[in-house]
This record gives sequence, C-alpha cells and structure tokens, in this order.
Amino acid sequence: MHAIGVDIGGTKIAVGVVDEDGKVLAQVRRETNADDVAHIDKAIADACNELIKEHEVGAIGLAAAGFVSPDRTSVNFAPNIAWREYPLAAKVAELVHADMPIVVENDANAAGWAEFRFGAGRDATDMLMLTVGTGLGGAVISERELVRGKWGMAAEVGHMRVVPEGHYCGCGHEGCWEQYASGSALERDAQHAAVARVDQAAHLLELAGGDPGEIRGKMVTEAAQEGDPLSIELLATLGRWIGEGSASVAALLDPELIVIGGGVGAAGELLLGPVRRGFEAQLSAMGHRPVATIELAHHGNEAGIVGAADLARR
Amino acid sequence: MHAIGVDIGGTKIAVGVVDEDGKVLAQVRRETNADDVAHIDKAIADACNELIKEHEVGAIGLAAAGFVSPDRTSVNFAPNIAWREYPLAAKVAELVHADMPIVVENDANAAGWAEFRFGAGRDATDMLMLTVGTGLGGAVISERELVRGKWGMAAEVGHMRVVPEGHYCGCGHEGCWEQYASGSALERDAQHAAVARVDQAAHLLELAGGDPGEIRGKMVTEAAQEGDPLSIELLATLGRWIGEGSASVAALLDPELIVIGGGVGAAGELLLGPVRRGFEAQLSAMGHRPVATIELAHHGNEAGIVGAADLARR
Amino acid sequence: MHAIGVDIGGTKIAVGVVDEDGKVLAQVRRETNADDVAHIDKAIADACNELIKEHEVGAIGLAAAGFVSPDRTSVNFAPNIAWREYPLAAKVAELVHADMPIVVENDANAAGWAEFRFGAGRDATDMLMLTVGTGLGGAVISERELVRGKWGMAAEVGHMRVVPEGHYCGCGHEGCWEQYASGSALERDAQHAAVARVDQAAHLLELAGGDPGEIRGKMVTEAAQEGDPLSIELLATLGRWIGEGSASVAALLDPELIVIGGGVGAAGELLLGPVRRGFEAQLSAMGHRPVATIELAHHGNEAGIVGAADLARR
Amino acid sequence: MHAIGVDIGGTKIAVGVVDEDGKVLAQVRRETNADDVAHIDKAIADACNELIKEHEVGAIGLAAAGFVSPDRTSVNFAPNIAWREYPLAAKVAELVHADMPIVVENDANAAGWAEFRFGAGRDATDMLMLTVGTGLGGAVISERELVRGKWGMAAEVGHMRVVPEGHYCGCGHEGCWEQYASGSALERDAQHAAVARVDQAAHLLELAGGDPGEIRGKMVTEAAQEGDPLSIELLATLGRWIGEGSASVAALLDPELIVIGGGVGAAGELLLGPVRRGFEAQLSAMGHRPVATIELAHHGNEAGIVGAADLARR
Repeated sequence: MHAIGVDIGGTKIAVGVVDEDGKVLAQVRRETNADDVAHIDKAIADACNELIKEHEVGAIGLAAAGFVSPDRTSVNFAPNIAWREYPLAAKVAELVHADMPIVVENDANAAGWAEFRFGAGRDATDMLMLTVGTGLGGAVISERELVRGKWGMAAEVGHMRVVPEGHYCGCGHEGCWEQYASGSALERDAQHAAVARVDQAAHLLELAGGDPGEIRGKMVTEAAQEGDPLSIELLATLGRWIGEGSASVAALLDPELIVIGGGVGAAGELLLGPVRRGFEAQLSAMGHRPVATIELAHHGNEAGIVGAADLARR
Repeated sequence: MHAIGVDIGGTKIAVGVVDEDGKVLAQVRRETNADDVAHIDKAIADACNELIKEHEVGAIGLAAAGFVSPDRTSVNFAPNIAWREYPLAAKVAELVHADMPIVVENDANAAGWAEFRFGAGRDATDMLMLTVGTGLGGAVISERELVRGKWGMAAEVGHMRVVPEGHYCGCGHEGCWEQYASGSALERDAQHAAVARVDQAAHLLELAGGDPGEIRGKMVTEAAQEGDPLSIELLATLGRWIGEGSASVAALLDPELIVIGGGVGAAGELLLGPVRRGFEAQLSAMGHRPVATIELAHHGNEAGIVGAADLARR
Repeated sequence: MHAIGVDIGGTKIAVGVVDEDGKVLAQVRRETNADDVAHIDKAIADACNELIKEHEVGAIGLAAAGFVSPDRTSVNFAPNIAWREYPLAAKVAELVHADMPIVVENDANAAGWAEFRFGAGRDATDMLMLTVGTGLGGAVISERELVRGKWGMAAEVGHMRVVPEGHYCGCGHEGCWEQYASGSALERDAQHAAVARVDQAAHLLELAGGDPGEIRGKMVTEAAQEGDPLSIELLATLGRWIGEGSASVAALLDPELIVIGGGVGAAGELLLGPVRRGFEAQLSAMGHRPVATIELAHHGNEAGIVGAADLARR
Repeated sequence: MHAIGVDIGGTKIAVGVVDEDGKVLAQVRRETNADDVAHIDKAIADACNELIKEHEVGAIGLAAAGFVSPDRTSVNFAPNIAWREYPLAAKVAELVHADMPIVVENDANAAGWAEFRFGAGRDATDMLMLTVGTGLGGAVISERELVRGKWGMAAEVGHMRVVPEGHYCGCGHEGCWEQYASGSALERDAQHAAVARVDQAAHLLELAGGDPGEIRGKMVTEAAQEGDPLSIELLATLGRWIGEGSASVAALLDPELIVIGGGVGAAGELLLGPVRRGFEAQLSAMGHRPVATIELAHHGNEAGIVGAADLARR
C-alpha cells in the first residue's frame, strides 16, 4: 500500500507519496504561515488532494515538530507553529477528498522510523536515532517498535541534562544535551573560540569576514576539511559530546545501532571518529559487552516524509 | 500456572513458589559460596527440587545481579559471582528433576517486573523502576514490555553520567548516577559532611560513636526522622539527585510512573518530597505535559523471586 | 592633601575632590562619547580644571574599566571605550592647567580601595572586594596593599572558572564566576525560571507584564522582599554562588573580610544570608580557622572617585 | 648571615645550614614519631645544636605541613603530626643552646620562597608556586612578598573548588583542585582507566603485575616516556588540570611565573606541554596580556630547608 507523508515545517510543507520500500514516488511543496493554523490545514489537504488524484494511497502521515498526543491525532504543543491541543488529523481529514487513516507523528520519530525501516537501521531491532541540527532530536526503536512513551513525548533526548549548571537552554533549564551536541552548539563554540583564542581562529575569522559573530557551522566543517586545527578540534568536541551522551543512553537502552542524522553529518569522519571514541570512552561495562555501531543516516531531507508515510500505514 | 522464582545473591539464595497473583506460596533459602559456581547450581536445583515435590510449577526464573544474555539462558558477567559466559539455565536444568522452562533474568529487571505486575505499577503501561541500594539499579517497562536492549543490558541506569568529571565509580568511569543516587552515596556524603561541617554533624557523630567513618545510611535516616537538620539536608540531596536524574530518563522514555525501591525508602517523605521536587524542577516541557507519578515500591526483599517467577512463565 | 578622583564610564564621567578622610567635597559630571577618546580626555581635563580653580588638590586619580598598565599611566584595553594601549595619564596631563601626579587605576580596584581605606574595610589588613553588577569585578588587599599583579591585571575575579563547560561568557570562555555571580546572572536565571517553572513564576511574570524576557534583577529583589518564594530562591542561588566562589578565593588569599558591592546589595539579608552560608559550607579547614566577615560595601556610586583620588596621592 | 632550615615531616626531619645564596652547607637528619610532639621538639633542637657547634648561624626556620599562626610562632593544626595550637618556636627555643630568632613557616610556603629567592623565580616579583605531590600545595609571592593571609592560611590552592560536586576530598568537600591536579589524582585516574578501558591499559597493567589497584604514578610516567598512549593521555589530563586551575589563579593574581614542583616534574614536557596548553586555553584576556611563564622548580627535596632558613633571617 502506498501512503502519503507530510513534513510540516514552520514556513513550508513537503508532501510525498511513499511506496512500501520507502521510495518517494512523487512530491509537492507548499509555503505556509506558522501563525495561521487553518491555512496550514488547507495547504496540507490541498497537497494531499493533488497527489491522491494521481496515486492510489491508503493512509496519510503528518510529521511535525512538537508534542504529539499518544493517540496520534493531535499536536499538544509546537515550538514553531501556533498549535495548542490542536486536533490536526481531524482538521486535515475534513478537507481531504478521500476517506483514509490520518495520523500525526513527531518529526524526529518519523525520521528515525525512516532510518529503521529503509535506511541505516534496516537490519536492526534496537536503535537510537539522533538528529543533530539546530537542536538535538531523537527517536528510540526498541525490539522493532517505536518508543512513544505514555504521553507521546519519549525520545526528547536533547533535553537530557549532561552538565549540571551548564549552558542555558531555550527550554528554561541548564545543561541540556542539545546545548552541547547540536549544530547551534558547534556554531556558538566556534564563535567563542574566535574571541578567547583569536590567534588560532585566523582561518575561521577569515571565512567569516573577520566577525566572530558571523562564523557559521558550515564554515567550521569547511575549514576542518581544509585542515584547520581549531575547526578539527571544534568538530571533535561536538563529536565527543554526541558520543558521551550516547553512552548514557546506551546504559539505559542498550541499542545495537546509533544513527546520526542532520547537517553535521557532512563533516564525515572528522565528526564520526570523535563520536565513536567518546562513546567507547564512556560506555559502561566496555569489554563485557558488544559495542553499538555508530553510523550516518541514509536519508536526508525526505526522512520525515518517508517515516510519516510508513508509520501511517501500520 | 505457578512458577518458581530464585533470587541469587553473593552468599545466599532465596527460592519461592509464586502464584499468578504474585503471591509467594512457599519459600526456602540456601547459603552459597560466590566462588564455587557448581555449588551454586546445585543449591539452586536442590531448593527447586524440594519445592517441586510439594507444588505444581510450570517454570523457573533465576534472578541474578549481572549481565544476562538476551536469550535469557546465561550470565555473561557478574560482579559478585565467578560467572563469565556461564550457561546458568542449562546447568541448573541438568540438576532439576523435572522438565520445564528455565530462564535467567537480571535481578533489577525482575524486581521491576514484580512491581509492574503486582505492585506499584499494576495499572501502568510505561514505568521506570529504580532500586536505590548499595548501587542504583533499574528496570524499564515500555508499553507493558520489559525493555531488555539488544544484548540484554538495558536499564543499567546507575551508569548514566550525571556529572562530567564527577565522583569516581567502581566501573572505572566518573560521575555515574549511582555515585549520587544510592545508599552508598548517602553514607559517603554524610561521612564527608561530618568532616567539613563538624558542628552541624554533632547528632550524626554521636550516633556513630564520634567517628565520621562509622556513619551509616540508617543513622542518617534515623537522625532525619528525629529532626536533625544536616540529616534532613543529606536525604534531600539524595532525593534531589534521584529526581533530577529521573527527569533525564523521562526526557528519553516518558514513563507515567517512577517506582523507588531499596532500603532508602524507609525515609519516606523526607526522601520522596525532594525526589518529586527535583524531578519537577528538571522535567523538560513542564506545563506542557502530565507529570509522572513517583512512589515507593510495594515489594520488599521478595521482589526478585516474584518477578523472576512471573517472567519465567511468560 | 586633597585629590581629585575621576570615575570614567562609557557615556559619562564623574569627577570629585576628595579629602583625606575620603569625603567628597565637590563633584561635577560630564557626558562623553565612548568612541571619541580625545573628547574624553578633554572632558576629564575640563572638569578637573573647573575643580582645581576652587580647591587645592595635589593629585588626580583616573578610574576606568579596563586593563591598566602596571605603571598606572595607560589603559591597555577597555571593553567599553576605544582605548588600546592608550597613554591616558599623559593625554589628560597635557590639558590640565596645573602640574601634579596623575595616575590611572582599574575602577574595581579603586572601589575596593575606597572600601578598604574609608568603608567596610577600614580596620582590615587583608580584604577581598566583590563588585556584583552587570559583571563581577574585584579588588584584593593583602597586608594593607592593593594587589595589582605583574601586569596590572590582578583581581579579575569574575573570570575564575567555577563550572567546567558551564555558562558561556563574553570573554570567550565557559563557566566564569561572573556568569553565576552577577546581576546579569540573576536576571537570566529569573528569565529561564519563568519558562521552565511557569507556575512558580506568576509573581515575577506579573511584574514583567507577562514576558519572561522583560524580567529584571530589580523585580526579583522587589518580589523577594514581598515574600515571593521563587524570587527568594533566585537570590539565594546568587548568594550561594558568591559565597562558594569566595571560599575558593579564601583558600588562596585568606582574607579577614569580604565586601560585597554593587546594586544587588539592595536585597540585604536575602542575599547576604545565602552568601555566608555558601561561604561556610565550602570554606576549607572550617573549624580549624577563623571565618572571614562578609558585609556590604559602605560606599555607593562615589566609590570609584574616592578610591582613585586616594590611590593617586599615595 | 647563615641560617638553619628545618623540614619537619611525619616520620623524619631534615636540618641544614643555609648560606645567603641559598646553598646548603651542611645537613643532618633525624627520625621522629609523629605522635610524640615533645620528641619532635627535642630532635629538632638536637640537630640544631649539633650544627650550631660547627657553624655560625643567626636564625632558625621551621617548615611544617599545617596551619601556621600568622605571627609565625605556632602550628595551629597539622594533618600528620599531633600539633594543635602548638607553640613550636618557643618549645624548640627552650632546647636550643643559643639565643636567636626561631620562626615557623608552612612547608609549601617555604618551598615556594626557596624558588623565589634562589630558583626558578629569582628574577620574578609575582609568582605562583605549585607543589604537585600527594596533594597540591602552593605559595604566592606578590610584589616580592610572601602572601600569608590574615591568619597565615593563604595559598591553600589545593582546596580551591574546580568541579562542583566533583571528586571527594579528604577535607570533607568535593571537587577540590588537588583531587584533579596531584600525584594521587594521576594514580587514581590510571587505576580507573585500567578498569574502564582495559584494552588500552595493557602496558600499565603489565607494569603493575596485572592489578589495576597496584598502578602507581611512577609507572604512568615511565610508560608515557616509553610511548604508551594511555599514559601520555593521563599525564596530559593531569597537566591540563594544573594549567586550567592556574588560569583561574592568574585571573585573581596575575603572576608572571608559575613554578611546578613535586615528583610529577619527572615527566618533563609530557606534563609541562599540557600544563601550558591548558593555561593558555583558559587564560582570561588572552591576546590582551602577556602570558605567564610556566616552568619546573629548580630545587628538589631541600627546598623546605632553604626556604625556611631564608625566611627566618628576614
């Protein structure tokens, strides 16, 4: 059975038809307005209706950043869209010209599910997905099932605390993992290094036109690949935090596989090497257990579409 | 179906017949020698044979501290008994005068399962069990299933890192949760407080005959219940660490219930109040989610027997 | 001998004639432009010339935020004014209509010296001054002498590290003391608490018109004085950090007195109590040593003028 | 003028005649009993009397581990000898057959003074001495004067807190610098690494006969010098902590020189390189200030004798 997956961002949505092998057969995009929830409903439905005309589909999965109700019908809270206890599935159903199951999923869960079903985790039963982007998202697969938690809020890995009284987080707490293991953390660390260690930051500062505040994560990756020692160190620090935090998750969940998604994957081994070393250095009972495999995600931007579609047809 | 549960400690084993409601119908105990694994096999089998004579049982569950193989047949490593890749189930089966399934379970998992099935978690679907004793053990129940992990090593919660470069742990790492959230941590903190803050420690020192090194966890609980401010503070610190660490676990697993087992439960609200406050103070998305219930375990010492028996018959 | 003290801020200067008892006999103010260093020279000199006409003075002391050369003639770097290796004393001397010694001092050192000579430290020989404002400044008096360090940069207490990998600091490092013990830290902690613990922050949010980002330090002090539990807790946390960091300084310098200056002093015992408790809780060898006295500064805004004037005539 | 310096250890004393250039002209040793303070007095006096017979000396300096009174007459508390408010100078004076000034000094201060006057700090005015041994001792020289503090307890650098809720310390607190920057820390870290990272510890374990608990600091230095990666890493971690903590001290005191004494100096650049890198990485205002020189102490075991003698004749 084919299904539609919808990846709902703050300013645009991407909608695709996904076959049973996780292939995206067709895709359309729409621009949206984060403050106008009715408009988003309509944009989603329009895109679905357009695709339904030409494709036979049996279900629709909606992936959104936010807290999704455990019955997969509503978004209880979203950071970037004005949804509060919003019955998204029902709202979209009213506007879709066909009767089929519509479910809502957290976007990081959808991306993790795509990797589990059709990507790096295809052969795994127990897996941790980390999406290292602006923040740090995650998904947990345990014995081939997505772990959603009692209230649909599991896998908020970015808000595990890794440093008591550490970096401030937008969530109001301090020391959250995503403040150490995200693209934003990389960027901020680079900007600070350019102030405290100005000599070593010459290469980065050149890329940023001389202004520490203009350094971007991409520049760090670029400079590191050109051999810049400070940038290599910054990626290694990011990797170490991803790996060390993963060791804490492994103490709790014992996954066989950890999949790293998100833009930082572009750094390749400059990131993955330190992730693996940090993981092994902190893994409990090292020497008395197998060590989980750590690898990059296979899917890129379409992971949300693929995962949402596949979760909808289950 | 009745089943036998065996709780295997370093120096003794407890064996009981457990009915379908989690009630222990009969129980026998044996002394053992941690270095003589063959003797332990025999002690277990003897006790089982004795009970089998008088009770109809359909399965045997063996609960042991250590890393249990994911197929539940062997102990790969145990901290207190000389088991290394030891096929415990098969060894015991050879000596038992009846043919029935025999499975091995981690003891903390068994205790957590007992709470889930017949105790504090009877009505829960997603639960975290924390056994706060010498160390910090745990069990995770997700959608009514015990989470074992790929290699049977899930729920080693005590070795999640909560303080980078924090207290040394016997596992060779630093900052493990169990170094802050266990009976040993309480004892050690009390002993240190009696050195650094000698005036405030007068009550505790009196109970310990004047020697900081002789202060025991029980004395702290006793003194706290008598109103000693330092002891109340020490229990509050222990509780805060239990609660704050639980908030990190909740970010990952979103349980509805957290059950606190182990001897420290004797402190009652002097511990549970700070656990709850620490949990709420650190819980991500507080205000946008329900807050998990935190309560004491219902079972005491027999939890291992009950849980192992029940897991064996599944 | 009377002397002139000049307190040079980013947008204005305050100039006063100070007698030998530390009394300000006359004072004038001028507005300035932080980017126009020649204009600042002129504003200083004009104000001095005006005062010199009516008062007999023997020296001029210039207090400025920044790194002052050890010979007290120049500002090597200033965060808020465009001075870089700037010979401030010579520049001002050219414009002053009288021949007298002119010296430059760091503003926190000047304020500390005012307290030592004429304020809370009048009877002390070994003293630590902490100025808790936007940042955390300091001054160290050892055996009645101001400790300037080899390059004039001593007493940058705000940049001692108190939390490895802690809060980011404008200096480019992480975990600096001033990120935990300053008015800015109080404000930021209050703003974060209003996000993470919204129920408890009702009083503060009301004062801030409902916007966490509009909470100010003064509101916390005000709310605390009205009994708001969260605000009392926030001041206690600030006080604890001041006290705990002071214990580290005391391990190094063993002062008899710690003077707390800056606007947060308005909180009175709600701050000082936690400062003292934090200090005693962390003071090394407690019980084998006297405990330093901790009190509020006697001087307010004019401390820079008084201290600079007095240091100039020595 | 020549003077006698006495270095009083827990089980033996070393007594020497020191000339004005810091040279030890003659030396005698005595065994002592830490619990019998009268016997220690006598041993000191006997040795002094023996030396006085053959050398003209004008003063005696007694260096001891412990808290020395600010008037330099008494030991208020010693960790290893049964002195409590003990008037050591007067007790020894009664038994010495000559009338001359006798002063008591803290042993780390004496060692630091020896370096300042006759060793690595000969040309310095502002210096920090760190004695990295079982613990971490220190001495502070500010503008050519030893900083004693109000109550003689300055320079207890080892008990500055560097990690909140970090390693336990014998002083009763947590996170003291000496738990990260001492020979004991090196040893303990090596022992833990041999448990958590057993593969990497093969070389160290071989040196220790296979038992992690038997690894000693010397073995780490030896293995590092033979190229063992784990041992090099362990020394680098020790060095980093020495350097990073020194950066905090430099924020407060701005010394031009930091002298590293104690047995760990044997590791040479394997230690000093990381010390310097850690210092520069954490030094506040790097780029706007000169960077202090960091070097090894020139004196070895006789530093206490030399410093105590020289301090006595001042």
